[in-house]
Amino acid sequence: MLIPAPATASPQRPSLSAARVPLTRAVEVLDESGARRTLHIPAERPLTLYLDKRELVTLMTLGAAPELLTLGYLRNQRLVERVEDIESVVVDWEVGAAAVTTRSGTADAAARTRQRIVTTGCGQGTMFGMLMEELEARRLAPPAVARIRQSTLMQLSEIMRTQDSIHRRAGSVHGCALFRGLEMLMFVEDVGRHNAIDTIAGWMWLHGDSALGAGDDKLFYTTGRLTSEMVTKAAQLGVPIVISRNGVTQMGYELAQRLGMALFGRANLHRFICYCGFERFDSEPQAEPAPVRVSFGG
Amino acid sequence: MLIPAPATASPQRPSLSAARVPLTRAVEVLDESGARRTLHIPAERPLTLYLDKRELVTLMTLGAAPELLTLGYLRNQRLVERVEDIESVVVDWEVGAAAVTTRSGTADAAARTRQRIVTTGCGQGTMFGMLMEELEARRLAPPAVARIRQSTLMQLSEIMRTQDSIHRRAGSVHGCALFRGLEMLMFVEDVGRHNAIDTIAGWMWLHGDSALGAGDDKLFYTTGRLTSEMVTKAAQLGVPIVISRNGVTQMGYELAQRLGMALFGRANLHRFICYCGFERFDSEPQAEPAPVRVSFGG
Repeated sequence: MLIPAPATASPQRPSLSAARVPLTRAVEVLDESGARRTLHIPAERPLTLYLDKRELVTLMTLGAAPELLTLGYLRNQRLVERVEDIESVVVDWEVGAAAVTTRSGTADAAARTRQRIVTTGCGQGTMFGMLMEELEARRLAPPAVARIRQSTLMQLSEIMRTQDSIHRRAGSVHGCALFRGLEMLMFVEDVGRHNAIDTIAGWMWLHGDSALGAGDDKLFYTTGRLTSEMVTKAAQLGVPIVISRNGVTQMGYELAQRLGMALFGRANLHRFICYCGFERFDSEPQAEPAPVRVSFGG
Repeated sequence: MLIPAPATASPQRPSLSAARVPLTRAVEVLDESGARRTLHIPAERPLTLYLDKRELVTLMTLGAAPELLTLGYLRNQRLVERVEDIESVVVDWEVGAAAVTTRSGTADAAARTRQRIVTTGCGQGTMFGMLMEELEARRLAPPAVARIRQSTLMQLSEIMRTQDSIHRRAGSVHGCALFRGLEMLMFVEDVGRHNAIDTIAGWMWLHGDSALGAGDDKLFYTTGRLTSEMVTKAAQLGVPIVISRNGVTQMGYELAQRLGMALFGRANLHRFICYCGFERFDSEPQAEPAPVRVSFGG
């Protein structure tokens, strides 16, 4: 997991703890023949969010980037309007808590919480309806400026494949990355796809993307499926091109079409499918994928 | 998707609609070279649950078994105590609604809803804490009676592999099945793992498993990962043996250990891992997997 320092640190940037915790655990298992082996499995632990001492929600997370996850959750649930409103996020793994303190208090948080949190989840409760208007108002960058070539897509898959990850060591996590061209700005894994993209959202918020157009030159890459909620969250970030190693559902597809987002799925080193947003895709029938070396950083 | 008739229909069994809707959609895509192809993608649609005309929640679902999904959701969220309390579940896909009518009204549903629904989701909000006491009180069948052989595990993987499915046609869905030995009692797919297991829970509820011990002779097979919430839901059903094509997270593992549940992961025709509950597993070092033919039905 990478947390590069912001290029231009805002004076109003919240202070974040840097809580660390083991991300895998070794367990003794039996294989199919009954022989003992040692495997690693990914951690999963509860993190309870408190906003100005009010309990909000408990997220089950790998624990790789709890401060950014907390920020992203607050942002995507619209519980805090601007990142500058947050004074600090302090995570304490001893008690599994993330304490968020705002600069001016959150008088209306109780009302917002009741309204909003019941609508979150992985297909169980969604913000779909209420967000559509907002998403359509926030236009994605036009295809002339936000497009991608076949060779770039294959290089991105190669970068994701060779990324050091919990998934390679222990499986059973989803990875998400934010790219600018071939530059990986942020990479995170979590037990839930939603947590992973919320963490990316937290990173973008912290790095001042609240300006319209901050997502224009970004690409979002996920190992998980592209359901309506993943497309919605990418659209909230203003990212016009989304790539998955996995497939797409009908509602993810229809939503992306409506928003003019390009969706690429089943992506690997040699193949992929462009589901929609054809006008953002430059095919290069002669291109050969080549392993790349890139430097990471913000 | 199979909905065999219950062996002994209860006079108090709720009446269910049999709403049907297309589960895949054909879309025109581009492959990596820019060539046009037609692919199928799984449906994903909102289903809003109403309990005695009160709106409860909107689930995003494939739509394969909306009535059973509704039942399972009500059960797992503890919104209705007994399946006999439900008079009918009527799904209307024109408006994306599931109307649940109880026999005696649900005076306290408002209070229950507020308390419970905020805790649902895919890692974002969990019922973990409040359920542990209840789960530990509901003891799983002892290893002497609830155990599984290596050859049975491999045959189950073969049955799952050859099952006609949306996943084979369109990908991007999770499948869940309930077995008694090699007999597949129920198979369902959904865009969310939680919906799939909730649907199994609905089926079990409808078929009178509220009696203690009804899960004793059952096996639960899922294509999804075994996180804390999946283990929790299997434990709520009283199923002592859970198998996944995928892996396990630390909290799923620790919870299963505490409850004495056997978890098998990375299961395919030739291999699997027994993560815990070794005492329920009979290895057969000489066993050869063999394709099987079984008849499905309840």
